[in-house]
Amino acid sequence: MKLATLTSGGDCPGLNAVIRGIVRTASSQYGSTVVGYEDGWVGLIEDRRVDLYDDAFIDSILLRGGTILGTGRLHPDKFKAGLETIKRNLDDAGVDALIPIGGEGTLKGAKWLSDNGVPVVGVPKTIDNDVAATDYTFGFDTAVSVATDAIDRLHTTAESHNRILIVEVMGRHVGWIALHAGMAGGAHYTVIPEQPFDIAEMCKAMERRFQMGEKYGIIVVAEGAVPKEGTMDAGLGEEDEFGHKTFNGMGQIIGDEIKKRLGYDVRTTVLGHIQRGGTPTAYDRVLATRYGVNAARAAHEGNFDTCVALHGEHIELVPLADAVAHLKQVPEGRYRTARTMFG
Amino acid sequence: MKLATLTSGGDCPGLNAVIRGIVRTASSQYGSTVVGYEDGWVGLIEDRRVDLYDDAFIDSILLRGGTILGTGRLHPDKFKAGLETIKRNLDDAGVDALIPIGGEGTLKGAKWLSDNGVPVVGVPKTIDNDVAATDYTFGFDTAVSVATDAIDRLHTTAESHNRILIVEVMGRHVGWIALHAGMAGGAHYTVIPEQPFDIAEMCKAMERRFQMGEKYGIIVVAEGAVPKEGTMDAGLGEEDEFGHKTFNGMGQIIGDEIKKRLGYDVRTTVLGHIQRGGTPTAYDRVLATRYGVNAARAAHEGNFDTCVALHGEHIELVPLADAVAHLKQVPEGRYRTARTMFG
Amino acid sequence: MKLATLTSGGDCPGLNAVIRGIVRTASSQYGSTVVGYEDGWVGLIEDRRVDLYDDAFIDSILLRGGTILGTGRLHPDKFKAGLETIKRNLDDAGVDALIPIGGEGTLKGAKWLSDNGVPVVGVPKTIDNDVAATDYTFGFDTAVSVATDAIDRLHTTAESHNRILIVEVMGRHVGWIALHAGMAGGAHYTVIPEQPFDIAEMCKAMERRFQMGEKYGIIVVAEGAVPKEGTMDAGLGEEDEFGHKTFNGMGQIIGDEIKKRLGYDVRTTVLGHIQRGGTPTAYDRVLATRYGVNAARAAHEGNFDTCVALHGEHIELVPLADAVAHLKQVPEGRYRTARTMFG
Amino acid sequence: MKLATLTSGGDCPGLNAVIRGIVRTASSQYGSTVVGYEDGWVGLIEDRRVDLYDDAFIDSILLRGGTILGTGRLHPDKFKAGLETIKRNLDDAGVDALIPIGGEGTLKGAKWLSDNGVPVVGVPKTIDNDVAATDYTFGFDTAVSVATDAIDRLHTTAESHNRILIVEVMGRHVGWIALHAGMAGGAHYTVIPEQPFDIAEMCKAMERRFQMGEKYGIIVVAEGAVPKEGTMDAGLGEEDEFGHKTFNGMGQIIGDEIKKRLGYDVRTTVLGHIQRGGTPTAYDRVLATRYGVNAARAAHEGNFDTCVALHGEHIELVPLADAVAHLKQVPEGRYRTARTMFG
Repeated sequence: MKLATLTSGGDCPGLNAVIRGIVRTASSQYGSTVVGYEDGWVGLIEDRRVDLYDDAFIDSILLRGGTILGTGRLHPDKFKAGLETIKRNLDDAGVDALIPIGGEGTLKGAKWLSDNGVPVVGVPKTIDNDVAATDYTFGFDTAVSVATDAIDRLHTTAESHNRILIVEVMGRHVGWIALHAGMAGGAHYTVIPEQPFDIAEMCKAMERRFQMGEKYGIIVVAEGAVPKEGTMDAGLGEEDEFGHKTFNGMGQIIGDEIKKRLGYDVRTTVLGHIQRGGTPTAYDRVLATRYGVNAARAAHEGNFDTCVALHGEHIELVPLADAVAHLKQVPEGRYRTARTMFG
Repeated sequence: MKLATLTSGGDCPGLNAVIRGIVRTASSQYGSTVVGYEDGWVGLIEDRRVDLYDDAFIDSILLRGGTILGTGRLHPDKFKAGLETIKRNLDDAGVDALIPIGGEGTLKGAKWLSDNGVPVVGVPKTIDNDVAATDYTFGFDTAVSVATDAIDRLHTTAESHNRILIVEVMGRHVGWIALHAGMAGGAHYTVIPEQPFDIAEMCKAMERRFQMGEKYGIIVVAEGAVPKEGTMDAGLGEEDEFGHKTFNGMGQIIGDEIKKRLGYDVRTTVLGHIQRGGTPTAYDRVLATRYGVNAARAAHEGNFDTCVALHGEHIELVPLADAVAHLKQVPEGRYRTARTMFG
Repeated sequence: MKLATLTSGGDCPGLNAVIRGIVRTASSQYGSTVVGYEDGWVGLIEDRRVDLYDDAFIDSILLRGGTILGTGRLHPDKFKAGLETIKRNLDDAGVDALIPIGGEGTLKGAKWLSDNGVPVVGVPKTIDNDVAATDYTFGFDTAVSVATDAIDRLHTTAESHNRILIVEVMGRHVGWIALHAGMAGGAHYTVIPEQPFDIAEMCKAMERRFQMGEKYGIIVVAEGAVPKEGTMDAGLGEEDEFGHKTFNGMGQIIGDEIKKRLGYDVRTTVLGHIQRGGTPTAYDRVLATRYGVNAARAAHEGNFDTCVALHGEHIELVPLADAVAHLKQVPEGRYRTARTMFG
Repeated sequence: MKLATLTSGGDCPGLNAVIRGIVRTASSQYGSTVVGYEDGWVGLIEDRRVDLYDDAFIDSILLRGGTILGTGRLHPDKFKAGLETIKRNLDDAGVDALIPIGGEGTLKGAKWLSDNGVPVVGVPKTIDNDVAATDYTFGFDTAVSVATDAIDRLHTTAESHNRILIVEVMGRHVGWIALHAGMAGGAHYTVIPEQPFDIAEMCKAMERRFQMGEKYGIIVVAEGAVPKEGTMDAGLGEEDEFGHKTFNGMGQIIGDEIKKRLGYDVRTTVLGHIQRGGTPTAYDRVLATRYGVNAARAAHEGNFDTCVALHGEHIELVPLADAVAHLKQVPEGRYRTARTMFG
C-alpha cells in the first residue's frame, strides 16, 4: 500500500511528529511506503512530492517545530477546480490513501475530496483547539505552555507599584489558549472572543487588587477579544469570514484604554508567532504521534472518510463530516470556572 | 461553610494548585473558609491545622512544586484507630466537609472515612497516572516532561559509536511515565512493569540499529520493569504489597547485562526525584486548578462520597468507591502502539 | 557588625540571590546581622526596614525573580535633600555599612552618600549590561536567554513563504541584549541603538535571503534602535536624559516600513517585561551570589567607597567612582563580529 | 584560502556553533572555503572529509547539540605515527590551515602538529571548564544549567521528613560543574575532586539542618569526588592517567554511607550524559560562535600556533602551548566562597 500525506494551514508544533508516526507505522507494521506533498494542497495540485523513508532523518524530526513538508494556502475555488488534477496525480503516483493534516478549512477540503472519491483519513490540526470532534488538538499544549511561561515571568517583575501587565496571546475566534494560559499562569483577568469584555469591570478588578495592597495585575488578552457593544471605542476593526469582528493589536488597545481610565503604568507583551514555533511539549508529541499511528492504521484498514480524534484516553475515528461540523468555542461554564480564579 | 483539606502520600507537582483552587472557590463563590491539616492524615489526627486565606500567599503557590501543607504516611491500622479522634477534631474545628488530596491509599482511607460518616470529596493524586476513575492525574504530565527533556538531550550526545544510553524513570507498578516519555522522546526501546522484558530482544534491537549505521540507542526503563521469567538474572528483588516483584536500580541492572552481552559502552541516567519536583507544567496546573474548583463546588453542593475526575474535556464527579477500584495499568494495545515507534 | 542593603531601579533577575549572598556571608562568616530597606532609597529615607535572618526563607529566595525588598525610584533632588535623614536612620538602626544594589543612577547616589561619609559597598545591577566597571551584570544572561528562546521558536514557524519575523527586545540606550540574543538565536539581522540602521540595507538583506530560497527572515530590534538620519520616517520620537532619541514600538515601526517597502507578510513579537522576570539562569545566580558574598566581605574588611565587579573569572573591588564613569556601549568591533553572522 | 576543521573528544554543546562560526566567517568575510574532517583525528588520517558550505544547513546547526562532524578518539601513538599521512591529506585537499576543536588532549595533539609544521589555530572545548588559558569554555554553562535545573526540582520535593537528596554531576578531575551548579541551585553541601571530603562533616551538616527544622538536605557530588584518606571505605577505585583516584558511582557510594551512618532516607539522581547533550544555552552559543569567528580570522591573518580564549569580555589569541600547560582546577578560595553558602 502507498500512503500520501500533506500539511496545510498555519504552523503547529507536532506536525512533524504526525508525519513520523505515519511513516513509521506504515513501514514497520504494514511494509507500506509514504510520499509527502509539499506546501499543502498546492503541492498536491502541482505534483510536488517527496518520498518519506523510515530512516534516521524521519526519526529526528520528532522534536522539530514547523513541518518538513511545508504548508501553503489555496483558495477553495482553485482547490475545487483542481479535483481532476489531484485525482490524476494521486493515481499516477500510485497513492492508495491520502492523510491530510490540517485545520477546519483543510478538513473541509478533505471531506470534499472524500465525497468525490478520494480515500481520505484526516488528522485535525489547530493550535487554537477549536475542532469540535476531538478533545484536544496537538500544538495547543505547546502554545499554552509558551504563554504560561511568559505570564510566570511577569509575576516576578515588581519594579514599581500599581503596574498592569498585559499579555496578548493567540486566538482570533476562540479563547482556549487564553483561558488555559490565564488559568495556568494565575492571571488576574482573562478576556476571550466568546465573551465580549466590559472594560469598566476589568478596571475595577485591577483597582480592587491595588486597594488590597497588591502591586500589580496581569491581564491575558486573546487577540480576538472584543469589547461589549458601546462600552469602549476600539476603532473600526474588521469583519472576518465568520462575520466576527476583530481588531489588530487588541492587547495594546486595552492597555491604552486602561492607562487612560486609571492612569497607571501599563506594559504589554505581544507573544505572536513564538506560540506556534519551537519544540512541541511532551504532551503534544505523544498526541501527534498517536494521531499519526492511528491514521496510518485507519488507512490500512480501509476506514476512509474519517478523522482521528482524542476522546478521553483513546484515539478514535470519527466521521470526517463531524470534524468540520462547527467551531468548538469556550463554553460559558468553562469561562465561569476561569473567572472563579480571577482577582 | 467550612472546608478542610490535606495532602497525603508522595510528592506531586500540582498539589498547591489544587489547594489554591479550593481556597479561591470557597472564598469567592461561596464566602466559605478553608483550613488545611499538616502532613496528611497525621496532622488530622494530631489536630495540626492552619487557616488558608484567599490572599496573595495562596495566589503565589500556583507555580510551586511540593505542598505547602506537607505530606506524611500513616499506617492504615493507626489511621483506623484514629477515627473518633478525626471526627472530634473535625467537629471541634467546625469543618463541614473534608477534601483529601492523595493517591490510591489516601482515597481508600477517604472512602473509609466517608463510610463512617465523614462528608468527603476526594481529589486523586498520583504522579504515576494509575488511578482508574480519571483519564489523567496532575503531576503526570510534569514527570513525563522532565523525563522527555532528559531523553531529548541524550539524542544529541554522539561522542562515540555504538553507545547505549539508558534512562531510568519512575513507575514501580505501572509504566505510564515510561510509555509517554519514551514515545515523546523518541526512545528506541521502552520497558514497563506490565510487560516483562526479554533482554535478548532488547539487545537485538540495539544491534539492528548499529547495523543500520546508527551511532547510538536510547532505552527507557521504568523502575519497576521486570525481566521475563528465566531470561536473565536480575538478582533477588523484593515483593511489594501487590505481590509484584521489583528490583532496585533496574536501569543499572539492564545496562550491566547489555554491556556483558554486547560489549558496547553503556551509560545510565537515573532521574529519581527530579521527576516529582519543580514547577508543574501548564497542563498540570490547569488540571489541578480545575480539580480544586470542582471539589470545592461538590462539597458546597453536598455531593459527598465522591471524587473529582477528568473525563475527556470535563471534570466530573465519580463515586469514591470507583476511584480506588483498581490500579490503572498500561493496556497491551497502548504498549503495542508504543512498540510501533521503537527501533 | 550590622549591614544594610536595598534594591533600587528596574527589576532584574538575581536581586534576591545577591541579598541571600549578603545575609549568608554576614551570618556564617562574621556573625553579623543584616537589615533590608524597602523600596530602594525611598524606604531608607522613610526608615522602612526589615530584619533579614539567615533562615529557610532567605535560602528559598535564590530562585525567585523580582526582589523581596521591593524597589522604587526617587528623584535625585529629594534623595540629596534626605541626606541627614538617611544618616540618622542608619545611625539609629546601628548600621555599620550600606550595600545598595542598583544601576547607574543608584550607584551615583551611592557614590554621593559615600562622599558624604556613609560607608558604602555598591553592587552593580543592570539588565542591559551597561555598567562599565564590570564584564557582566547579573540579569543580563537571563534576559538574553528569554529573548533567544523566543528567536529559537520563530525559526521553526514556516507557515508561508517570504515572511519576516521581528522580535523587539529590551535595550533603550545600549544593544547588548539584542547583540547577544541575535547571535545566540541566529537572527538574520540585528539593530542596536549604538549603530543607526539603514532600512534599505535591512530590506536588501531580507530580499537576498528570499532569492536564495530561504522562506523567512528574523530581525532582532533593540527597543532603542534608531534609523540613520534621513533614511526613513519613524515619527517624532522623544529625547531622553542622555539626549538620545528613542521611539516607542520600534519593532512595529520597522515592521510596518518593511511591509510597505517589500510587501511581504511581517509579524512582530514584543517581549517586553518577560525579559526582566522569572527565575534567573544558573549563570546569573552564580554571579549574583558571588557579588553578594564579596560585597559582604568588603564591608567587613572596611573596603568602602567600592563596588564589586566581575573581571574574567574573578570578583574584584573597583572604586565606586569607576562604576559610574560612563555607560558601556557595544563597541563597533563587537557589532562587526555580529554582522559576520547576519544573512 | 581553504580551512579545515574537526571536532575531537567528548561531546559538548556548542561544537556546531563553532563550526558555523568558522564557515560563515570564512565565507562572508574572506570568500574562503571550509572542509570538515569526520570523527576527529581519525577522519583526518583516513581522509574522510566533507565540504562545509555557507548554506541553510550550516545556519540551522546553531541550536543542535552534538557535532555534525562526529568525534572520535585516537591513541597518541597512532596519531603521531600518522603525521606524514595527515600532512599529505591536508596538502592533497589544499588546506591552508587547520582548526581543531577539542579538549586538553586534542590541543596537545594540535600543538604537536603545529610544531611539526602544520598551520594550526586551536579552539578549546571542555565541558568541565578545565582549560587554563581561557576564562570559560563553551558547553560548561549548559552542563551547569542542566544540573541546576535538577537541583531546583529537588528543592520542592518534600514527601517526608529527614530526607537527603544526592545529585551526582560530571567532573572526574575538576569540580567546576559541581561548584557552579551547587551554588546556583542552593545545594546544602557540595563535594569536588580538588577537596577530599570528610563524610563525618557532611553528615553533621545534614543533622544540623534537621535539628533546625529543615525537612531535607541536598548534596551535589562531582563524580570524581574522593574521601579524605582514612575517613571512609569507598572501595578500591581506579587510578587514572593523572594518578588521580576515582570511584564509579560516587553519588551512590556517599548516599549509602550517609544512610548507614544517619539512618535517613537517601535518594540519588545520576544525571550522566544529559549534561553533555541538548541545545546549548544562549551563553554557550555566543561564546562558541565568537570562538569560531575569531579562529577563522586568526587563520586568515596567519596567526598560527595559537588558541582562541575568553579573557573578560574579549576573545583573544593565546599561544597554543599555554592552552595545554595545566589543568585548571577549582582554587581553594573559590571552594571557600562556595562553602559560605552551604548549610
